[in-house]
Amino acid sequence: MITKSELKKIKSLKIKKNRQLYSLFVAEGKKNIQELVNNNFKIYKIFSLAGYKMFDSILINQNLMNQLSFLKNPSDVFGVFYIPKRANIINENLTIALDNVSDPGNLGNIIRICDWFGIKSLICSINTVDCYNPKVIQSSMGSISRVNCIYCDINDFLINSKKISYGTVLDGGSSIYSSSIRKDGILIFGNESNGISKKILNKLDFKITIPKYNINNGPDSLNISSAASIVLANYFKK
Amino acid sequence: MITKSELKKIKSLKIKKNRQLYSLFVAEGKKNIQELVNNNFKIYKIFSLAGYKMFDSILINQNLMNQLSFLKNPSDVFGVFYIPKRANIINENLTIALDNVSDPGNLGNIIRICDWFGIKSLICSINTVDCYNPKVIQSSMGSISRVNCIYCDINDFLINSKKISYGTVLDGGSSIYSSSIRKDGILIFGNESNGISKKILNKLDFKITIPKYNINNGPDSLNISSAASIVLANYFKK
Repeated sequence: MITKSELKKIKSLKIKKNRQLYSLFVAEGKKNIQELVNNNFKIYKIFSLAGYKMFDSILINQNLMNQLSFLKNPSDVFGVFYIPKRANIINENLTIALDNVSDPGNLGNIIRICDWFGIKSLICSINTVDCYNPKVIQSSMGSISRVNCIYCDINDFLINSKKISYGTVLDGGSSIYSSSIRKDGILIFGNESNGISKKILNKLDFKITIPKYNINNGPDSLNISSAASIVLANYFKK
Repeated sequence: MITKSELKKIKSLKIKKNRQLYSLFVAEGKKNIQELVNNNFKIYKIFSLAGYKMFDSILINQNLMNQLSFLKNPSDVFGVFYIPKRANIINENLTIALDNVSDPGNLGNIIRICDWFGIKSLICSINTVDCYNPKVIQSSMGSISRVNCIYCDINDFLINSKKISYGTVLDGGSSIYSSSIRKDGILIFGNESNGISKKILNKLDFKITIPKYNINNGPDSLNISSAASIVLANYFKK
């Protein structure tokens, strides 16, 4: 079972400040938990309903699961894991950076896309939503276990890494289909509403854009995770 | 102002049954509302905070806006619109169909992607989440005003339309990069967890797949709206 204070502690992990205080985060569902364990994330505690035992999980009833869960439809298994120590940036062919992405569903989905394309590190600006936010964990569908999210000042990173930078913009960029992105470059995506921040925008070596097809009408922009999907699929196709 | 019974009626529009009963749906935020009006959706009522008047909106205070809103962070404007009569399918170059897509954020995002590529009609299976669900409206970012979602039995549609059908699958399909999709074809995407249903799968003329790059590891699949983004961007690139 679970004490009242333990329940309170776990429920408090919805908030970033508490996740940092305890160095813990929540992952729900068999798939998410299995992938974290497979990738050596250290278990704090796992709770499960009868019949869904995983890794010495503590058996709880549905009522308690409903109290623990951050989901509208609680899963059968609820895991609490230790936040791993800050990983180093794995030097890879192409680096991806997010400048102030704020929606947890978008960040989770972009982590999953990076994982699909084998990208091991994702640079996130300090203001980007926390990757241990329960909604990020949920929408990353286990990919958080394989993609290191590294929070830093993107401006400093650009200065220190000396990488050629490419930023996705809505207007005034070259088409992604005619742009050649260097293998050792850094590809930057901006905030959902405001795009890449002015400071970073002014520093970019190249601006690239996804051509709009419905030019007479249609939306002003694509969702940031759709944009990342299209740009990366086009890059890795080569 | 607003009567108690009116407040109750509007709040009840969170549920599909009530949206169908009253033939009304909710759209929040200036952009969503502006786009619906631009595209001739009929206004039932619009409510706004002081300083945010739009289209004869009824002035309400923040407290009432908080009560009305379906959002965690309510917007300044809250609209209620009539659900338009079922539109006819616009015969276009490529038809998109969704087989049992269940997540409202995914449907909203796919509507936005269709709009980006100028696709005017989206065929949805009967079990696909309702396009007037508030979360769909929100994530479509106004594109719901330009893309007709037509709910029907996809199996019957395939039989009647005689279109050549292409379904996206995880295994056993031809690469999207080497597949040629006919201009008058129908491209089908399946459910988030289970893919395309067996009945439809058995009827497909062609199965296509997005090649996985992280072949030794990585996620089992991409999010359905990422997949739609990649397949459509690749198709329209030609």
